Amino acid sequence: MAGGSGTRFWPRSREGRSKQFLAIFDKKSLLQTTVSRFSSFIDVNRIFIVAKADQVETIIPHVRKVSKEQLIYEPTGKNTAPCIGLAVVHIYHRDKEAIVAVTPSDHLIKKGSLFRKTMEAAFQLAAKKDGLITIGIPPNRPATGYGYIQVDAEIDVINGVHAFGVRTFAEKPNLATAERFLKSGDFYWNSGIFVFKASVFLKTLEEHLPDLYDGLGKISEAIGKPEYDEVLQKVYSQIHAISIDYGVLEKAKNVYVVKGSFEWSDLGSWEQVYKLSPKDGAGNVMVGDALAVDSRNSYVHSSDGVVALLGLDDVIVVQENGATLVCKRDRAEDVKKVVNHLKKNQYHRYL
Amino acid sequence: MAGGSGTRFWPRSREGRSKQFLAIFDKKSLLQTTVSRFSSFIDVNRIFIVAKADQVETIIPHVRKVSKEQLIYEPTGKNTAPCIGLAVVHIYHRDKEAIVAVTPSDHLIKKGSLFRKTMEAAFQLAAKKDGLITIGIPPNRPATGYGYIQVDAEIDVINGVHAFGVRTFAEKPNLATAERFLKSGDFYWNSGIFVFKASVFLKTLEEHLPDLYDGLGKISEAIGKPEYDEVLQKVYSQIHAISIDYGVLEKAKNVYVVKGSFEWSDLGSWEQVYKLSPKDGAGNVMVGDALAVDSRNSYVHSSDGVVALLGLDDVIVVQENGATLVCKRDRAEDVKKVVNHLKKNQYHRYL
Repeated sequence: MAGGSGTRFWPRSREGRSKQFLAIFDKKSLLQTTVSRFSSFIDVNRIFIVAKADQVETIIPHVRKVSKEQLIYEPTGKNTAPCIGLAVVHIYHRDKEAIVAVTPSDHLIKKGSLFRKTMEAAFQLAAKKDGLITIGIPPNRPATGYGYIQVDAEIDVINGVHAFGVRTFAEKPNLATAERFLKSGDFYWNSGIFVFKASVFLKTLEEHLPDLYDGLGKISEAIGKPEYDEVLQKVYSQIHAISIDYGVLEKAKNVYVVKGSFEWSDLGSWEQVYKLSPKDGAGNVMVGDALAVDSRNSYVHSSDGVVALLGLDDVIVVQENGATLVCKRDRAEDVKKVVNHLKKNQYHRYL
Repeated sequence: MAGGSGTRFWPRSREGRSKQFLAIFDKKSLLQTTVSRFSSFIDVNRIFIVAKADQVETIIPHVRKVSKEQLIYEPTGKNTAPCIGLAVVHIYHRDKEAIVAVTPSDHLIKKGSLFRKTMEAAFQLAAKKDGLITIGIPPNRPATGYGYIQVDAEIDVINGVHAFGVRTFAEKPNLATAERFLKSGDFYWNSGIFVFKASVFLKTLEEHLPDLYDGLGKISEAIGKPEYDEVLQKVYSQIHAISIDYGVLEKAKNVYVVKGSFEWSDLGSWEQVYKLSPKDGAGNVMVGDALAVDSRNSYVHSSDGVVALLGLDDVIVVQENGATLVCKRDRAEDVKKVVNHLKKNQYHRYL
């Protein structure tokens, strides 16, 4: 899934250039890194990318290894259930036996070998069980920005990877609840990575989101035919936007959790990027032409020129393409407020 | 005097583009504003500008009203005594009776009518007395960045402007001393603005800096002759760099102070610029495309793009031509440290 848009990484993310297209930790964009992560153990001919129609120009340079036939475009964004549904319909059209892994393309995952081991276990479980498998991450802090899944009894151990039933899903909690979740030991972060048989997914969709299922059926019939674009447009103009979590996973009975022990973050803010970056002796992260004088525990990213920090601690400075954000670290979640002010103050050219 | 160089206003001031060439409070540079301030009551044909030879390209666009014959160039900087001496020699060559006012070109002066009244009184006093007159500013705070003059008995009142003898000169004091100066009521800031008869200045120079006087005599003889440049170069290679305060004023007996009641600042740092700028309701000064969200008492100058401040108080952000300074307000005096770091880290292109 590479169709996301967003402003949390302004000024690096702009209209038409959202997080998945940014190179944050190295020279590869998060999308490129996601493709590489999978192509190390999945044939690149079986990697499909769903994006929005208006992202076609942006996306091509990031996914040169993936053929154009494997790029699937949504006319507009309708949240994750239609997005995943559309991809699954295309995959199922090619291979009725396919087992599908679904992943966001703008997350950070470290320890690739653990990731591969987890995914291979999830594929094996999906082959055995007619279920929807979600990768759950044991929390290491009381994060309030993630959804949680409470696991039930262990159902399997595959190559040392543990799998569980699901007791309940929980929306993003407040801090007290998140602390309780962390303490309990049976609440995992919902990573947004899923594995299932295409056929099982479609059957589950038929049960819980029958309108979407019907629409996807029409699209499926049109694949490879001249009317495909017209049918896609028409179906998308009518279907409801709904998330896979709310629309399917929280209702279905056949959901399982595979425990992922790799390092994972959804990279929700510059503060998270700071926390996940290697730091110098003063606790600073300096990217590009940047220097810190008598300044500590700060993140500075300079794309085009030099940024010099003097006598300031705990700040985030990000400079790119004529725009500079200067922000207290504990306010990084509020970058949206800046974007809203830019809109209000006729600074649309910087969005 | 427009030959100054310096880095206190980095990143706006750069090598070859020092403070006098910056437009800080409006669209005119400080140099242009200084010329305008005087040309409102002094014929522009009698305004002379001393700069360094390598500033000739930079200075011309700022002083279009002043003819090229009135631009005087020093081969290198030798502090204020040679600079003023060179200008006086040129003026004296044209007019043996000239009364000369000397002024820095990178200071802030508000209340132009009070300034004019003060200067006219100083001209009158200089016509009456064979002395060196300095404009002293009654302090309104215990500034540690200025030199002070302790005044003696009042010697004259001209159009309501008070003139005094001088008891002593004091270098930049520490805070305790500055507070004592402020309390005493007879210590004034040394503004660096002087008025004297050209003939009296040269006589005083002969007494206190005879080597400089001799060198200037050689230059004077060469004015208008083919060998002028050669003589100027030779004299400048031999004379000592020395300030007018240390070399002449502190030694001379014929020094007087005229009290200036206009608003004055030498603009020594971005912090002073912040303090002297009109502020919005949140205490912010926003210049160019700049916005502040949940931020107070800050100065933001953006020359080329937008700067957005989020959740930070008491900071200075200055962005120009590919360089950005982000600085705690109480550290604005240390911009030099940033410049030194830039040098050390091979960032010469940003100096």
